[in-house]
Amino acid sequence: MHIDHVGIAVDDLEAAIRTWEVLLGTPCYKRETVESEKVETAFFATGESKVELLGATSPDSVIAKYVAKRGPGLHHVAFETADLDAEIRRLTAAGYELLTPEPKQGADRKRIAFLHPRSCGGVLVELCQSLPA
Amino acid sequence: MHIDHVGIAVDDLEAAIRTWEVLLGTPCYKRETVESEKVETAFFATGESKVELLGATSPDSVIAKYVAKRGPGLHHVAFETADLDAEIRRLTAAGYELLTPEPKQGADRKRIAFLHPRSCGGVLVELCQSLPA
Repeated sequence: MHIDHVGIAVDDLEAAIRTWEVLLGTPCYKRETVESEKVETAFFATGESKVELLGATSPDSVIAKYVAKRGPGLHHVAFETADLDAEIRRLTAAGYELLTPEPKQGADRKRIAFLHPRSCGGVLVELCQSLPA
Repeated sequence: MHIDHVGIAVDDLEAAIRTWEVLLGTPCYKRETVESEKVETAFFATGESKVELLGATSPDSVIAKYVAKRGPGLHHVAFETADLDAEIRRLTAAGYELLTPEPKQGADRKRIAFLHPRSCGGVLVELCQSLPA
């Protein structure tokens, strides 16, 4: 596994894109709305990993709720795996809880699943697998 | 720049090491105490990046205070740069604030500097440069 991306919850996506473009010295290379999650994402390339900004597109988005409760900041870390279903089987057998029972479609051509923060020391962990182009 | 590591604040380092060893499917390869920060660190290799667990060694450690306030979880993200001083000059000229005026010695043979979360959308960002072996 390697770090696919770090997810950052933001309150103002346009402002956050400017902040991270300068910080990382690289332009946002993709924006994508995930309707099911009510978020707009913006991606930056940093070596083999990415920084993913997450802005709410609706007040009832999980990101809007997160920002209201905790403020903007680090939201999750995602690890790429070659076989998501095998990883889920391995980790649930070891007692790790999933946040949702089945993997779903995420941004950036990925199948994704989240592990519950209570299984991961308070960290929201995403597991993801790239879909064939 | 690439992601050097993701830093995770934990309340029980031994338990967290067991959690992350299984989760990542890889053993902790190094533990190191940073006396100046009153933290003990534990590292896991994940591709070109690392996961760094941070446990307080004293109740007045910044990590103890962080965990008391926010709970255990994602604490910072660190980006490796080939020239830390040049990056600091570039970012401070662009209006980014440092948490401490000068770089310092970090774990894992690094010179490090932290950018203030208020410059980075609520994210504690570490910049680091590997020291020659």
